[in-house]
Amino acid sequence: MIKQVLIGIVCGAAVLTAGILIGHFGITKSSAPSWVEDVAKDVDERLIEKFLSEVDNIQIQENLRELTKVPHMATTAGDEQTVQLMLKRWQDPETGLDQAWREEYMVYLSFPDPKKPNKVTVVSPSDEVLYTAREKEKTYPSDQDDPEVVQPYAAYSPAGHPKGKLVYANQGKPNDYQLLNNTVDLRGTIAITRYGGAGRGAKAINAAPYGVIGVLVYTDPLDINDGLMSDINETYPHSWYMPPSGVERGSFNGQFGDMLTPYLAAKEETFRIPVEDITGIPPIPIQPIGFEDAYRLICELGGEAAPTQWQGAFNCTYNFGPGFRNPSAFNNSDVKLDIFNYEEKKNSSNVMGVIKGSVEPDRYVIYGNHRDSWVHGAIDPSSGTSVMLELTRVLGKMVKQGKWRPRRSIIFGSWGAEEFGLIGSAEYTEQYFTKLSERTVAYINVDIAVFANATLRASGMPSLQNIIFKAAKQVNAPGLDSTSVYDNWIKYSNRTSQANGLIPNVGYLSGAGSDYAAFVHYLGITSMDISYTYDRSKTNARIYPAYHTAYDTFDYASKFIDPGFVSHQAIARTAGNVLIRLADSLIVPLNCSDYAETLEDYLNTAVTLYQHQLQERNISMEPLKRAVASFRSAATHLDQVIRSSDLANETPLTVRRINDQLMLLDRAFLDPLAFPDKYAYRHVIWASSSAGKPTFPGLADAFANTESQSSAWDKVHYHLSVLSQAIEGAAHTLGDVI
Amino acid sequence: MIKQVLIGIVCGAAVLTAGILIGHFGITKSSAPSWVEDVAKDVDERLIEKFLSEVDNIQIQENLRELTKVPHMATTAGDEQTVQLMLKRWQDPETGLDQAWREEYMVYLSFPDPKKPNKVTVVSPSDEVLYTAREKEKTYPSDQDDPEVVQPYAAYSPAGHPKGKLVYANQGKPNDYQLLNNTVDLRGTIAITRYGGAGRGAKAINAAPYGVIGVLVYTDPLDINDGLMSDINETYPHSWYMPPSGVERGSFNGQFGDMLTPYLAAKEETFRIPVEDITGIPPIPIQPIGFEDAYRLICELGGEAAPTQWQGAFNCTYNFGPGFRNPSAFNNSDVKLDIFNYEEKKNSSNVMGVIKGSVEPDRYVIYGNHRDSWVHGAIDPSSGTSVMLELTRVLGKMVKQGKWRPRRSIIFGSWGAEEFGLIGSAEYTEQYFTKLSERTVAYINVDIAVFANATLRASGMPSLQNIIFKAAKQVNAPGLDSTSVYDNWIKYSNRTSQANGLIPNVGYLSGAGSDYAAFVHYLGITSMDISYTYDRSKTNARIYPAYHTAYDTFDYASKFIDPGFVSHQAIARTAGNVLIRLADSLIVPLNCSDYAETLEDYLNTAVTLYQHQLQERNISMEPLKRAVASFRSAATHLDQVIRSSDLANETPLTVRRINDQLMLLDRAFLDPLAFPDKYAYRHVIWASSSAGKPTFPGLADAFANTESQSSAWDKVHYHLSVLSQAIEGAAHTLGDVI
Repeated sequence: MIKQVLIGIVCGAAVLTAGILIGHFGITKSSAPSWVEDVAKDVDERLIEKFLSEVDNIQIQENLRELTKVPHMATTAGDEQTVQLMLKRWQDPETGLDQAWREEYMVYLSFPDPKKPNKVTVVSPSDEVLYTAREKEKTYPSDQDDPEVVQPYAAYSPAGHPKGKLVYANQGKPNDYQLLNNTVDLRGTIAITRYGGAGRGAKAINAAPYGVIGVLVYTDPLDINDGLMSDINETYPHSWYMPPSGVERGSFNGQFGDMLTPYLAAKEETFRIPVEDITGIPPIPIQPIGFEDAYRLICELGGEAAPTQWQGAFNCTYNFGPGFRNPSAFNNSDVKLDIFNYEEKKNSSNVMGVIKGSVEPDRYVIYGNHRDSWVHGAIDPSSGTSVMLELTRVLGKMVKQGKWRPRRSIIFGSWGAEEFGLIGSAEYTEQYFTKLSERTVAYINVDIAVFANATLRASGMPSLQNIIFKAAKQVNAPGLDSTSVYDNWIKYSNRTSQANGLIPNVGYLSGAGSDYAAFVHYLGITSMDISYTYDRSKTNARIYPAYHTAYDTFDYASKFIDPGFVSHQAIARTAGNVLIRLADSLIVPLNCSDYAETLEDYLNTAVTLYQHQLQERNISMEPLKRAVASFRSAATHLDQVIRSSDLANETPLTVRRINDQLMLLDRAFLDPLAFPDKYAYRHVIWASSSAGKPTFPGLADAFANTESQSSAWDKVHYHLSVLSQAIEGAAHTLGDVI
Repeated sequence: MIKQVLIGIVCGAAVLTAGILIGHFGITKSSAPSWVEDVAKDVDERLIEKFLSEVDNIQIQENLRELTKVPHMATTAGDEQTVQLMLKRWQDPETGLDQAWREEYMVYLSFPDPKKPNKVTVVSPSDEVLYTAREKEKTYPSDQDDPEVVQPYAAYSPAGHPKGKLVYANQGKPNDYQLLNNTVDLRGTIAITRYGGAGRGAKAINAAPYGVIGVLVYTDPLDINDGLMSDINETYPHSWYMPPSGVERGSFNGQFGDMLTPYLAAKEETFRIPVEDITGIPPIPIQPIGFEDAYRLICELGGEAAPTQWQGAFNCTYNFGPGFRNPSAFNNSDVKLDIFNYEEKKNSSNVMGVIKGSVEPDRYVIYGNHRDSWVHGAIDPSSGTSVMLELTRVLGKMVKQGKWRPRRSIIFGSWGAEEFGLIGSAEYTEQYFTKLSERTVAYINVDIAVFANATLRASGMPSLQNIIFKAAKQVNAPGLDSTSVYDNWIKYSNRTSQANGLIPNVGYLSGAGSDYAAFVHYLGITSMDISYTYDRSKTNARIYPAYHTAYDTFDYASKFIDPGFVSHQAIARTAGNVLIRLADSLIVPLNCSDYAETLEDYLNTAVTLYQHQLQERNISMEPLKRAVASFRSAATHLDQVIRSSDLANETPLTVRRINDQLMLLDRAFLDPLAFPDKYAYRHVIWASSSAGKPTFPGLADAFANTESQSSAWDKVHYHLSVLSQAIEGAAHTLGDVI
């Protein structure tokens, strides 16, 4: 009987268990669809660790070696070689992306004529050539010597043959010419200027109204070499400093994108404005020269001595001119420019690559850098391209092996013709304006990855700050085993935030220094730009000294910028970490309260600088104050919703709603009519400004004009309304959705 | 033993069942979250049936009676009464919305001075007043007689006292004045014009360059009354026709929104442009009068007979003038205008109401109409407001009873100051630009709900056509028991579509005739406008004859426009049906292939009209052809994805992705720089055009200018590129997301 009872119990239990199993697994009615788990997935920290460990400095070094084999100026054969390299890597079946392709634009470029090199000469009254400036930079190591090295020139300088007395015009700023004009009749002169202080093209644009007919520009050793000048033992190849014959090339146009097709993608049949309608380029010939030639010209100048602030590193007094002093070998002689630049429409390629998102393929994280250089471009831009290739190798391998697929889509862009004015990236944003506006979560730009090997430098929208910090804390600082990139960074550059205490200082992207410009200013996409950079206690160089010269080579980069490529590796790890978090986080990791803090700082500055004078004119700052307060309140509320919700168990549409609010935040600051005089600047918080105040750019610029025109107060009031409405609009984007 | 076996089986079965139940319901591990079902819910057809059955014509009639008790011109006490009525209804605990509130804007309006009424007189050479036009309309039924009835006037006409010889200028079109000027020296004259052919303000703007100093405007019985004129037995109160003293009031400005605050919401502290910078308003005084006065003035005119097309319904020859004929009572006399209009900034209110969405509260379907009228405004706009109030009553009750909550949020807008230039709706779109752009699925406008009781009339983006058809098929045509609104409609107005065969003709929203303008042109929101309208075989009236007169009363509406309010009911049912489908459908019911068909029609017309001449100038239409083909291909593909997917079982993010593509389609056609001379027109497909061709408006307008200026070919080419890029952009929005 006991046995029977036991058997009964055992059987009963077995039947019950069978029933439970059938009930649980055999009946599908209310079981969750397979996607329920997928849509709630958050970033995987183990994957990030794996990514960090796979990023390899030697791979980056070898990428750089390959990228810098030949000069690869935009649209040259060397450029095409890099296009093919990118395509090969991104289409690699083992380590490539889902898809990669090229996109071409027919863009307006400017070149020197290889058959008629530009010439700068000193010509005597009897037309004897007394001196000829060097046409090409001197060759040191052989890896710099290539027939394709382009002669130094000023892209978009008109051709022409001006001849006149030389004057020294410091940096070619408006007030430099103004001061010089007080002493010297500038009509018919050639002005020599040094780099810095004003945009390249501005040095000629500012000169022309005074009757100056030609401009030279050089880099003073004071500004680039910490005063050092000798290539016997001081400059490259002995150090990172610029040799005497080094010349910074560059684009001398003032806006971004193809100049003939404003706001339109430059396809073959696209309407082009007449060439004579182009604005912002030099109206008179301009040519860059090395400081060895500048030394000869400047130290022979006559006239009054220039002011102390105009003096450079040469061991002579920099005089105003006009003309050379008496006695001197050049006495009574003119300087003559023979500029043979020509403009041409050429096909420039972007190379695009994609990893398709698994859960939200219609959300993009974009990562980009330009591919074109002036010469070999080891640092600018190939340091960044080497890093990008290493990122795509590591991520591509994980994708190809089936180990990972990001939640959102990742788009990689290798932009063409950046050096001529951010052209490839700008055309891309024009062509794909709608879908990029609708879907892009963020843009990461890594152009020059390593300027120097001291510390991280980051710029971007304040909402990205926290995720950059998080990533930087997980990466070891190069050469410092137990210190993170973050801890190293905060020693070099920091500020105190009311909400976050002492933190590294993240800069703003208010200019157009690299390909982030169209993303930030035209599309209103949350963007960042990072690199490794200088210890400012050790150098005052404007930029790394081989910038845009023939010396920016693999040899230079590997010996003097980042031996061992560990800073490159740190940038790859930091940028890649940010990229993965942006692509994989359930909630897009943008912090809107950090944005509010910046708006409040801007507002406080504006109140301090302007409120008193505005009150005198009955213009109220209250709408602006209310707008910033609305923004703060919406940001605080949204943050609180994010923190207090169990988002992994919420409906995916709730998560998406919050993510849309965060994604669209920067778009909300756009006003296509806010800056009618500034091409493609639409973001009211980050637009460029000439006023140089740490506050709202349009307001600062409008205010600066009130000194000269009294009607300008209307423009101040107008911009205050534009700004207040935009900030209120951004607050609406963040606020409760209904 | 058998018994034991049976007991065992029964027990075993019971235990197994218990196990199954425990396994199925007792263990929660993989059961679906509760929201899985909610997010997949589609529109409920039973709910639509219930909605249709609840819409009550008598409720609409009583709404209208209450709304038209007093005149409710914008910002008057009568307007405030309607604000209170809307708020009371929408805040009703039984039948109200989730929330309702008012929003105020301080807007620039124009009024006649009640203490100094505007005067139109005939003055003899000795300054004797020989004739005075009627100051107010004649009273028939008492419901029209109210001290608050505003004197007929031309809003935004300047004040002034011009006196001069009268001339007849037909409709005041540019070519009317040109023709007249061939015969008559127009300097110092007063021109009398009839409504129609040109915008109200244009009649004065076109006149001023010829030296005309004042303008009169009236409605010719030919244009409004099918020629009938007598109030003894022909016109209201005997029929719907305009009595002899009836005067169409109106706004004489040419753009929409508050004129002092372009692109900015008109808040108290907003920057306002100087009044003298306003463009598009009459530069000389203008005043509307009734046809009884116009008859006296025109039939006494001397000079040559005007052409046949200028002749109206009066039993006299319409002569050009100048001045009155000899002999006549007015011989040698002048016409004098004494206009005392003044401008004033006043607070105008929108009343807003919301039903919050359950699944996607961050998606809006907006339904709106203006609230302000010129006088009692029974038809314009209170017919629409009565319908809106009936919709909110029926929907609000379902919400309050817990029977329904839409998937998406529904926003109702009762706009202020539409009559002065669509001001309330335009200010709303300026203030909430960001979130409306980000989140609005569609806008439904029902202004005048019933012009007449013959047939449906609908205008809107082609993508909405199918859902209007679907709704119209489910509603009985008023007065025709077994015929649907759709079947009745197709008899009155139809076309053959390549894809859809014979279908009712849906118009386009290319002008700024009602509050849809800012939604369509400035925000790029998919919009529609519907009403019941005329049998064109029975009348040639420009519009219902009491339009903007003192006769647009409850008595008029209920006797002559829609006895029994059954056409109102049909509009409420049709519009409400569309509204529910837009708010509740799992996939937003917008058909992008129907949009493609319109683009193809536009393209074919453009090719026929322009290709030959473009080829002669080496301007290629290929980019436009490619863009339209891209759009078609993307639309076909997306349609196919929608049809072939089991969307109810897809991840809600897939559904959302498709819905975002459909929602953002019209936004993709926006280009804020496409029409630099047209205020707030940004939609490249629907912008207004003066060329009158059934094709892309900017292209047609640019082409029209090539006749006069040869440089205009550049503008044609430019606009072709703008247009092609916008259409390609729209194709990207619809295309595969990555």
